[in-house]
Amino acid sequence: MQTSSFQSAIKELTDDQTPRVWSLLVTVFGELAQDKGARISGLLLRHISERIGVKPEAMRVAIHRLRKDGWIDSQRTGRTSAYFLTEWGLAQSALASPRIYASEPAANQAWLVLTNPAQQQQIGDATGAWMSANLLVTAQEPAQSDAFVTPLDADKQLPDWMTSKVCDAQTVQMSYTFSTALIALQSRLDRTPNLTSLEIAALRVLLVHSWRRIVLKVPVLPDYVFPKDWCGSICRDNVSVLLSQYPKQDLGKLEDSIASESGD
Amino acid sequence: MQTSSFQSAIKELTDDQTPRVWSLLVTVFGELAQDKGARISGLLLRHISERIGVKPEAMRVAIHRLRKDGWIDSQRTGRTSAYFLTEWGLAQSALASPRIYASEPAANQAWLVLTNPAQQQQIGDATGAWMSANLLVTAQEPAQSDAFVTPLDADKQLPDWMTSKVCDAQTVQMSYTFSTALIALQSRLDRTPNLTSLEIAALRVLLVHSWRRIVLKVPVLPDYVFPKDWCGSICRDNVSVLLSQYPKQDLGKLEDSIASESGD
Repeated sequence: MQTSSFQSAIKELTDDQTPRVWSLLVTVFGELAQDKGARISGLLLRHISERIGVKPEAMRVAIHRLRKDGWIDSQRTGRTSAYFLTEWGLAQSALASPRIYASEPAANQAWLVLTNPAQQQQIGDATGAWMSANLLVTAQEPAQSDAFVTPLDADKQLPDWMTSKVCDAQTVQMSYTFSTALIALQSRLDRTPNLTSLEIAALRVLLVHSWRRIVLKVPVLPDYVFPKDWCGSICRDNVSVLLSQYPKQDLGKLEDSIASESGD
Repeated sequence: MQTSSFQSAIKELTDDQTPRVWSLLVTVFGELAQDKGARISGLLLRHISERIGVKPEAMRVAIHRLRKDGWIDSQRTGRTSAYFLTEWGLAQSALASPRIYASEPAANQAWLVLTNPAQQQQIGDATGAWMSANLLVTAQEPAQSDAFVTPLDADKQLPDWMTSKVCDAQTVQMSYTFSTALIALQSRLDRTPNLTSLEIAALRVLLVHSWRRIVLKVPVLPDYVFPKDWCGSICRDNVSVLLSQYPKQDLGKLEDSIASESGD
């Protein structure tokens, strides 16, 4: 792909705004270096960042922040540094990855749980979306005996005051914007098939990063309890198609291609 | 039946407490004089009241109150007075009778209705039991579009905090006491089969009156949303059996039997 064409694709994904760099780097490590012992050279990090439109200074600041926050650590070998996720960083990535990379909905069934409104008891360790202090929509049927529990029907749309508690209007809007960007991106990519390994890696990072910003904001619940205009399932499907179309690049080969390009 | 035996039966039904006389007279009129134009003589009223253990003075006071409240009116013919339900009294009786005399549950299906807790909106003219300001259990599926509505499963017991809002502990206790009294009564009646028309009329009045005090206190909802120890359905079944066993007495024949007894 020509650089200008790739840049246009990038712009479509980032909505022409440079994403927060430290958060983007977390995605890079999650994408390329989740294996124990995997390290990314400073050189490769800079190349990927450049492809995404991140300036070297911004990248250095972000790396400093991620080290300080305990996400990553580094090791110096001669003239170059290599970066890797800490134990904690690995754990965080492992926790988020199944949801981000999933090609299927996070859940297929939801339950409505009502506890006694006269008591401000919490429903165990239940997760989901709270409609009010005693009303929860959850994907895990709770065993609590003094709650009223009923499965929610996939064929029946929940009222707006409930779906808006599952996903707020801003996140719905983000899902719409991203779904539109994905369709435009797919069409642009279809017309320019020759991406380098580095471009594929950068494309995947942006795809995963954009989707992560949406999917990790919403509770683990089936699509049918979301607002009518929620586009999350379209996004998930299209991200999934693109990720199989542009498969994960091998970290070692990426490092080699950079090294030879730099004449290292 | 011997008077002592009949009195024992009466005591079982009234729990040895004389019921409120004016309320009892409403039942008498509902039982015997719901047809337009039907009148009950003062003599018959006194005879029935006596059988139930109500003294003539108490009856006179109650009649005065019922006239003042607009339930009944009277007409004098020679030496005697005849009493009848007013238009309003007839309407009240007609409204309550289907529930009191029903041999079937008032409803077979219940729905749970949840409205937006952020809005203190009322659910149209919905009837049923309110669990909290935005949570209703009703036997009429509401058409309101912005409410969450789900049918309640007859096989699944509701939690106590919900059933206690359908029927309070005191009414549950009344249903238990009455169901026990009905079983004792049935056994006593089986042993003494010969009741006079007047005794049958008095028995029916007490049966209907006792059941009315319970059934009109609870919402129109199927039995399965009531507390586990609610005995209302047992009461309804037994009242129903006794009312068919001791059928409604003709008002004219009752008047005749009283007149001949009194040598009028």
